[in-house]
Amino acid sequence: MKINVLTLFPDMFTPLTTSMLGRGLDDGKWQLNLVNFRDFTTDIHHHVDDSPYGGGAGMVLQIMPIKKALDSIKNKGKVIITAPQGKTFNQKMAQDWSQAENLTFICGHYEGFDQRVYDLADEIVSIGDYVLTGGELPTMSMIDATVRLIPGILGNDASPVEESFAHGLLEYPQYTRPENFQGMKVPAVLTSGNHQKIAQWRHKEALRATYLRRPDLLEQHALSAEEEKMMAEIKQEEDQT
Amino acid sequence: MKINVLTLFPDMFTPLTTSMLGRGLDDGKWQLNLVNFRDFTTDIHHHVDDSPYGGGAGMVLQIMPIKKALDSIKNKGKVIITAPQGKTFNQKMAQDWSQAENLTFICGHYEGFDQRVYDLADEIVSIGDYVLTGGELPTMSMIDATVRLIPGILGNDASPVEESFAHGLLEYPQYTRPENFQGMKVPAVLTSGNHQKIAQWRHKEALRATYLRRPDLLEQHALSAEEEKMMAEIKQEEDQT
Repeated sequence: MKINVLTLFPDMFTPLTTSMLGRGLDDGKWQLNLVNFRDFTTDIHHHVDDSPYGGGAGMVLQIMPIKKALDSIKNKGKVIITAPQGKTFNQKMAQDWSQAENLTFICGHYEGFDQRVYDLADEIVSIGDYVLTGGELPTMSMIDATVRLIPGILGNDASPVEESFAHGLLEYPQYTRPENFQGMKVPAVLTSGNHQKIAQWRHKEALRATYLRRPDLLEQHALSAEEEKMMAEIKQEEDQT
Repeated sequence: MKINVLTLFPDMFTPLTTSMLGRGLDDGKWQLNLVNFRDFTTDIHHHVDDSPYGGGAGMVLQIMPIKKALDSIKNKGKVIITAPQGKTFNQKMAQDWSQAENLTFICGHYEGFDQRVYDLADEIVSIGDYVLTGGELPTMSMIDATVRLIPGILGNDASPVEESFAHGLLEYPQYTRPENFQGMKVPAVLTSGNHQKIAQWRHKEALRATYLRRPDLLEQHALSAEEEKMMAEIKQEEDQT
């Protein structure tokens, strides 16, 4: 996969060249093409923004340099802009995008785009209901979520989190050494060696975590007969505390 | 404000030293203290993870080095961990956090934490319903959303986006030069000089954008009599197209 990014701050993208994603870049499993659209301005001051028609505070990013930068890219694939007014990014989108040969992201920076820039995009996607100074961090998050799904990028180490999300439940609690840390102990079942009991405990605790912290996820989750029984126990246990 | 971050990848945090947030750092308007918790390991290989009790794939980040790193910080303020099982981050949280003297974030990396690490946190916060390779990018997004609200960090340039969100509507479309770009034109009202008509147009288009792209936001928005009238027009206009 080759990902193009139009940005005024190409130096911001170092997080994607670190750790597992960086190794994937080095191994040629994906490519990152950072394009500074300031390079496509034609005035001597290299302005990329101007004041809005109709007045008002702030500046607006102009269409011209962005359109020229976009035209310079041969295989754009889907063109994506991150903006608060987009549909909210989720794991399903990351899965869809991870199948693509090419993707192109356009990053704004604290100022909005001229509406005609949005009209160039195939998708306007929001990272969540909060405001950031620029599109770079949300774009990196979307690239991270997407690229890590490309086969060979992650070791097997990362699979459990993935599976947990795939089943629509939050992850069960994990513990590692030491067994007793300043009086905080590992649940006895996990050191019992009884694999069936461990699996049941984990399943129930995943249900409990989801019930307590993200009940909205449970509404979309069809409970099995075993899960119905666990849920009844959980509700009783939580009522007592 | 001083923000502490416990991470295995301090080099990833360059985006926060760039642009407006970086200027705020240089001007002493906020401070960033990056702590590598690998420095708090005691074994010669500097391991920070171990296999999970009860078996299973993957590794789990140990409590010991993280607790020691945390204990080394004098003024921690609220301790925050980013994880999919947390409550979803939003603008309200950013506003609350921006009032704090100190904040401390703990970043995991593709592996989960020992449950006892979560027990050390005051808040577990999710950036959205998608999986990333680590906590660094979501932590940076949360820091960006928070720090930009500290007075003096942003110029006035960034205020409109903010206001738009504050009113619970998406932003109205903005346009800047040129008036006609390859046949894509600026709406005539914006070059009319009639400020009242421009304000009405913008209000209506903010409503339209919200209605078309994020109707869920409208449900939480009490419409004024004028907005009710605009919405009736919008619905009629959109039905015709």
